[in-house]
Amino acid sequence: MFEAAEVGNKVEKEVYDREVPKLREALLKAQMAFAGSDFAVAVIVGGVEGAGKAETVNLLHEWMDARGIQTHAFWEATDEERERPPMWRFWRVLPPKGRMGIYFGSWYTRPIIDHVFGQTDAAQLDRSLARVVDFERMLHNERVLVLKFWMHLSRKAQKHRLKALEKDRLQSWRVTPTDWKFFKKYDLFRDVSEQALRRTSTGEAPWHIVEGTDERYRNLTVATKLLETFRQGLKEAGVRASRPRPHPDRPAPKPVNMLSQLDMKLALSDKEAKAKLSKLHAKLNLLTRRLYEQRKGMLLVFEGPDAAGKGGAIRRLTQAMDARNYQVMSVAAPTDEERARPYLWRFWRNLPRLGRVTIFDRSWYGRVLVERLEGFCHQEDWQRAYAEINAFEDELAEFGIILVKFWLQLSQREQYRRFKEREHTPYKQYKLTEEDWRNRKKWDAYEAAACEAVERTSTPSAPWVLVEAENKEWARVKVVRTVVKRLEGVLER
Amino acid sequence: MFEAAEVGNKVEKEVYDREVPKLREALLKAQMAFAGSDFAVAVIVGGVEGAGKAETVNLLHEWMDARGIQTHAFWEATDEERERPPMWRFWRVLPPKGRMGIYFGSWYTRPIIDHVFGQTDAAQLDRSLARVVDFERMLHNERVLVLKFWMHLSRKAQKHRLKALEKDRLQSWRVTPTDWKFFKKYDLFRDVSEQALRRTSTGEAPWHIVEGTDERYRNLTVATKLLETFRQGLKEAGVRASRPRPHPDRPAPKPVNMLSQLDMKLALSDKEAKAKLSKLHAKLNLLTRRLYEQRKGMLLVFEGPDAAGKGGAIRRLTQAMDARNYQVMSVAAPTDEERARPYLWRFWRNLPRLGRVTIFDRSWYGRVLVERLEGFCHQEDWQRAYAEINAFEDELAEFGIILVKFWLQLSQREQYRRFKEREHTPYKQYKLTEEDWRNRKKWDAYEAAACEAVERTSTPSAPWVLVEAENKEWARVKVVRTVVKRLEGVLER
Repeated sequence: MFEAAEVGNKVEKEVYDREVPKLREALLKAQMAFAGSDFAVAVIVGGVEGAGKAETVNLLHEWMDARGIQTHAFWEATDEERERPPMWRFWRVLPPKGRMGIYFGSWYTRPIIDHVFGQTDAAQLDRSLARVVDFERMLHNERVLVLKFWMHLSRKAQKHRLKALEKDRLQSWRVTPTDWKFFKKYDLFRDVSEQALRRTSTGEAPWHIVEGTDERYRNLTVATKLLETFRQGLKEAGVRASRPRPHPDRPAPKPVNMLSQLDMKLALSDKEAKAKLSKLHAKLNLLTRRLYEQRKGMLLVFEGPDAAGKGGAIRRLTQAMDARNYQVMSVAAPTDEERARPYLWRFWRNLPRLGRVTIFDRSWYGRVLVERLEGFCHQEDWQRAYAEINAFEDELAEFGIILVKFWLQLSQREQYRRFKEREHTPYKQYKLTEEDWRNRKKWDAYEAAACEAVERTSTPSAPWVLVEAENKEWARVKVVRTVVKRLEGVLER
Repeated sequence: MFEAAEVGNKVEKEVYDREVPKLREALLKAQMAFAGSDFAVAVIVGGVEGAGKAETVNLLHEWMDARGIQTHAFWEATDEERERPPMWRFWRVLPPKGRMGIYFGSWYTRPIIDHVFGQTDAAQLDRSLARVVDFERMLHNERVLVLKFWMHLSRKAQKHRLKALEKDRLQSWRVTPTDWKFFKKYDLFRDVSEQALRRTSTGEAPWHIVEGTDERYRNLTVATKLLETFRQGLKEAGVRASRPRPHPDRPAPKPVNMLSQLDMKLALSDKEAKAKLSKLHAKLNLLTRRLYEQRKGMLLVFEGPDAAGKGGAIRRLTQAMDARNYQVMSVAAPTDEERARPYLWRFWRNLPRLGRVTIFDRSWYGRVLVERLEGFCHQEDWQRAYAEINAFEDELAEFGIILVKFWLQLSQREQYRRFKEREHTPYKQYKLTEEDWRNRKKWDAYEAAACEAVERTSTPSAPWVLVEAENKEWARVKVVRTVVKRLEGVLER
């Protein structure tokens, strides 16, 4: 695979001097159109030390409008990064629409290095790479175009280059002991990198291997590929602009489904609930402190129709927790910074650190519920979301975050009763909006979409718990008890 | 000062039951108006353990629309927090407009605890408190209303409360060993807290001391104060809405000023510059690595007229740095998340960690330059900004961040020449906008505002360096040399 990048590709000076002004002009023109467009560009610069990675990035800054470019390097992880799943550090610096992010080091660095140094076996490497493919496909679908450069040098050329730099008194700082340490494993690195590149060169995000010996060749190759990416992105933007607006999807309701079959008669009296909650709270407090000590995280999701009692159930949980240990995220309309990035970004940015609890009052399931039903996204967008959500939750669970998702269900009649109660109790009126009445009319479609979402995303590590919420006391106790049981099952004594 | 909160304030049950529904309704109504308003509310909950802090916060969540409230607790600092100035952790969670943040622990916690445990002397405590006063005044001016509650218990009442909680099998988790450790120093805490409260109870952000023994009294007091704050904020919002829009300020130009007196003949040939830069680059690289090892940060600010060569000078710096160690922030229009918070927030969120370099291409000085001249803010806003900027830069410097601010100056004629050159060089056209031509017409006013800004914000720890930028080579060498000299002066060998 790397052979084609060891043949001594070169560009003559006169050709270069003729091509560069044209290329710069075209690049800038494309960048300007891009700045106002609906897509982002992520450029990954990987490869062999000494092959001109930093020089290439500097060149891009010089040839383009640097104000639209952010460069990110992934150095040692901070503790805030270590206390979240590995992909968090990349999500937090995703470029917004109209902007380009350049990444030195990327989601490829760890899988390759870990395998070279024997930390992972072949199956683990393969699994990481499969996830990378999924991740990049998602980015592409979310209009983040991924452009991957691998700067290559043959073993001989790298040795030559490192030695030459070392000899130059003014350049020797560019060579570090790590460079030589890695050079000793050149052949192994080459094999593992080749495997990684082969596995992850996809239609959406192909690798471009660039021979790193000749600076002029390197510069022209990288700039030309970047120009192509901009143009491709702009062309697609045109196509997307002309396609019909997304339309609401109304899944056909099924009269008998897992939600309609819930036993809505389940109830507890105030007194019973109070007694039970008091005991459960003492346990829950102990367990959340144990969660902290054992460095695990917990993430709870609450979904369900309006007035199903999500807020009340959440308060019954937080009452028993130390305010320093939990956060409740109420999910409403995204901000413009959020809208400019893939839809999961706003949840990644609010992930709990290890030891803490984060409770989402509504969540990323909005994608397959309200966004689907109201036509806020295209059909292909909410359809691919099931797999993306599963991948997201998998990564959280694997990292040690305990996940529970609650669906609170009540009957249409009880919802009506609560709406009316809200209308008549002054301090509850704020909870009721025109939208609630509108949503109510789509009850059956919501129920069908909810059933589909629950079916397609309930996994052993991230199960859905259906809660009969016709009686508030019953629902609250069930929620707290479920959390207690789950923590008891997972945490060590 | 605390005596008034030890008299046994109580509210009878029937009074409470009569008042609560009215209060809740009024609170919600106010919160709803607040949600769409131009101000934010920050509620600090401090005081004695066992005085009902957590219970009060839970109550607010219950009585109000929890979706507009975020609670933040300041637990042990993360390494990302420790590697930035102490105030960073508060800036990162400031509430946006229309939202309320509740803070358990706050910018008061460290000053009080450090003094109680003998880490700071009286002068240091006083200095911290003076800064807090400035900070809160700034928040108030930026429309973050600060509401501060101190929940108080007498020594006897606290002891009684802690013991009672311990005895209750289901409540005993609320009492930790730290609570008893702190209780032993009750009298000292009381003295220091009293001092802190007295020093920081200002017209903009008064303290409310709440007796913590009776739950009903506590709840009514806190909720009533909160309601007053909302109403006050809404009233002011009305006043603000009716006041005239800010208007541009055109300071009278002085024909002889520090910028006009720069020697614009200073120049270097390409060859000279290249030779000098090459040597400086080797030094600079070594120094930035030493910066990293010595855990200091560096922050560089670039300001100056359009086409003064800021971008080029920045590239001459970054060429010699490791891409993993620096970030260039190009400051353009704020996002909506930024606009919803005090104007310094967007800079706090981009501060370098220790060991790193952050370069701002334009900066917080926009407040006293473009915002002043274009009428984007009121006169009182840019006038108070000088002091706010000095306080901000002080805090950075004290924390170990090396600050240098460059003003690149060129003549009007040279700017014209460069604009024309940009017009005629295809790959430079992107740098020139209509706005540049418009700004050019305000040259004299810009120059006068710049002189005022430089005069009022040049301090020993954050000096302005005026750079003669008529000749690009001269300017670039001067910038790199200044940074090298500054680092050599500050870093240990």
